[in-house]
Amino acid sequence: MNAICDLFGIQYPIVQGGMVWCSGWRLAAAVSNAGGLGLLGAGSMHPETLREHIRKTKEATSKPFGVNLPLMYPQIDEVMQLIVDEGVKIVFTSAGSPKKWTGWLHEHGVKVAHVVSSSKFAQKAEEAGVDALVAEGFEAGGHNGREETTTLCLIPAVRRVTKLPLMAAGGIATGEAIFAVQALGADGVQIGSLFALTQESSAHEEFKRLCLQLEEGDTRLLLKKLAPTRLVKNKFRAEVEAAEAAGADETQLRELLGKGRAKKGIFEGDLDEGELEIGQVVSLLKGQPMASVQETMTRLLEEYRKAASANYSL
Amino acid sequence: MNAICDLFGIQYPIVQGGMVWCSGWRLAAAVSNAGGLGLLGAGSMHPETLREHIRKTKEATSKPFGVNLPLMYPQIDEVMQLIVDEGVKIVFTSAGSPKKWTGWLHEHGVKVAHVVSSSKFAQKAEEAGVDALVAEGFEAGGHNGREETTTLCLIPAVRRVTKLPLMAAGGIATGEAIFAVQALGADGVQIGSLFALTQESSAHEEFKRLCLQLEEGDTRLLLKKLAPTRLVKNKFRAEVEAAEAAGADETQLRELLGKGRAKKGIFEGDLDEGELEIGQVVSLLKGQPMASVQETMTRLLEEYRKAASANYSL
Repeated sequence: MNAICDLFGIQYPIVQGGMVWCSGWRLAAAVSNAGGLGLLGAGSMHPETLREHIRKTKEATSKPFGVNLPLMYPQIDEVMQLIVDEGVKIVFTSAGSPKKWTGWLHEHGVKVAHVVSSSKFAQKAEEAGVDALVAEGFEAGGHNGREETTTLCLIPAVRRVTKLPLMAAGGIATGEAIFAVQALGADGVQIGSLFALTQESSAHEEFKRLCLQLEEGDTRLLLKKLAPTRLVKNKFRAEVEAAEAAGADETQLRELLGKGRAKKGIFEGDLDEGELEIGQVVSLLKGQPMASVQETMTRLLEEYRKAASANYSL
Repeated sequence: MNAICDLFGIQYPIVQGGMVWCSGWRLAAAVSNAGGLGLLGAGSMHPETLREHIRKTKEATSKPFGVNLPLMYPQIDEVMQLIVDEGVKIVFTSAGSPKKWTGWLHEHGVKVAHVVSSSKFAQKAEEAGVDALVAEGFEAGGHNGREETTTLCLIPAVRRVTKLPLMAAGGIATGEAIFAVQALGADGVQIGSLFALTQESSAHEEFKRLCLQLEEGDTRLLLKKLAPTRLVKNKFRAEVEAAEAAGADETQLRELLGKGRAKKGIFEGDLDEGELEIGQVVSLLKGQPMASVQETMTRLLEEYRKAASANYSL
């Protein structure tokens, strides 16, 4: 019995994070078909694109799947209605307060998990009535909490304040890490980077190829005066670092960032000008071939079982 | 059988980090007497002070203990000779290359562990002949690696490149975390913050009291243009943050830092002007009473056993 499996009706408590420009119907359906929970990343989809991806996911899998929706999504009312109309039963919310939408989603038979970066936000999310939590640490890719609390420190902190089903996120790309975060109090995991670099991810091949060559220290949390974002080293990031070192303010950074940088980098494969988002754990994947989701899940399960049956001693 | 216990001849693979202004003979002897490995923090001691602490530790315990020595210590030749003359059998080196001293220490019957922040440095340390490694993640207190790799990502990376006995450091203040890092590939742990705040630590009472009230997000890695250092929020840190936000360069930061700030804060208890160093994991200790080393060790062992015997499921 696993609280995450029970809640979502899935086989393994392994959720694929809903990531901008990576998590379309192919990835979500593949993860759900492999026994995990696939999530569509609505953050980078127009409403009608999301509708199309929801429909295609339903065609491609009979298993549960969900949508990740950042709560600062511009047409949030429209897209929430669409999610309900299309019969989606699981929503992961992030980047905002879950207070406004959780009750409404529940009324429409949708289960809600919310992504937090601290035990304070975990308590607020529980008060808002969410069914489960994702606690995401400093090592995660993309947008990130301001507290910079790492997964190792965050999971026990969140576990102490709530009994809700809890997924750990950030720094998890192996079965050993899944076992480790369970020892810290998580029931399951949300995995981003590892799935972003599978064959089924909609990220550009060049982006995946680059990420599978990164070393320790090649990602860094920057843009803290805007929204802290973990970025891969490239030409654009060097400009950000130079600007920040010189004391650039919010306005200057916003101008430097411009619009559509993440799409340019992750989806269009512009490795120089694009904003390349991936988690710190990517360096553990260095040199690995680009795997399918099924191969990835099989490896995670094998590693987990090995870790769970190893001899440990004090 | 545990590689760390075997190497050092200790009961539990729990090493107390040698921390500036915290790790005198009282703390080191108490940890060794409780079955772990106590380390004197030479970084904040003049050579003759270190000699005195070595002698007092020997009087206070018959168990193995060691010295942590930053390799940028000004009178390094003098202090290395002193360590050997006083019969110390275990040295943990940090903040520098272990190439020059490891062989010499071995010739004098001293076992050497080296602190690293990346798998590259781990490989270099193994080439230098060290007997064991401490891999310390981003969440650790005080001086810190430039890669910002968290313990969750760092331990598997180091484990992949070396079979040396491996201690995880950074973010570990519970028995559950000890179990978790073993699942990631560590044999044992080096624990700093938790021991820095025990009764036997030589840190100032006011510093300990403040640290035992800190919340998530209250420590932050700053001074990256000098040497990345994790600092507790206070008046001095606010000045550092303001200077860095405005683009202060290395020289300006060095001037702002001045001399003796860590002593002022940690040892003298000046909570406004001092440089307060503690690990991110301190927030897990919030509200706990100031424990003795023996109580702390007992709790760690209980938590570990509970974690090791829990039911985990995928």
